[in-house]
Amino acid sequence: MQLNFQKQNGMIPVVVQDFQTLQILMLAYTDETAFQKTLETGEAHYYSRSKQRLWKKGESSGHIQKIHHILMDCDEDSLIFQVEQVGGAACHTGYASCFYRHLDSQQQWQMAPQERVFDPEVVYP
Amino acid sequence: MQLNFQKQNGMIPVVVQDFQTLQILMLAYTDETAFQKTLETGEAHYYSRSKQRLWKKGESSGHIQKIHHILMDCDEDSLIFQVEQVGGAACHTGYASCFYRHLDSQQQWQMAPQERVFDPEVVYP
Repeated sequence: MQLNFQKQNGMIPVVVQDFQTLQILMLAYTDETAFQKTLETGEAHYYSRSKQRLWKKGESSGHIQKIHHILMDCDEDSLIFQVEQVGGAACHTGYASCFYRHLDSQQQWQMAPQERVFDPEVVYP
Repeated sequence: MQLNFQKQNGMIPVVVQDFQTLQILMLAYTDETAFQKTLETGEAHYYSRSKQRLWKKGESSGHIQKIHHILMDCDEDSLIFQVEQVGGAACHTGYASCFYRHLDSQQQWQMAPQERVFDPEVVYP
């Protein structure tokens, strides 16, 4: 059983989930280098598509993700990281989860009722 | 606020999560057609990369996914479908979740302790 990095240009999508509440925090991508770094350090590393480089989650904010469990799917091309989110928020906007909008009954996107955990202008000055 | 289908060749990854237990069931991809079909019917449709066509989840097994909530992330390029999984198993292998393997402390992939919900040879004869 091996991860298949070749299916999607060397990248594998990672669903990041709070290890206790099971809330989905974000979706990111890993490559072989980032995955190896994650295993070595126990802290989540990704491949940033916008920065086009290895990205340690929390490298600038300090809001790292400590790995508790890693799961792989049947096709060996997707992962789940169950993590402890230091600082309580995974999203750069200050929300706990990047998935802070939902589709309402009129099929309009609405903000989900939640508070910002931090002010992004303070964390990313 | 609009979904950005252009970032990844017209496809958007969808994390599929049980709406009650929050267990992550699978990761699939949607395109504009599949997403529209999902909204119209209230049942999950995807773009199947292996079949290279619109794929209604459960079209052969009957194990459809009834949509309860749809969430969008900050970058507008990932979705969560919170669903009711008819038949109790999302994976074609008969497991409730496609993520039935985890990395152990020796960094080996192991089967997670769970039972098959159905026998795939009966469901997909």
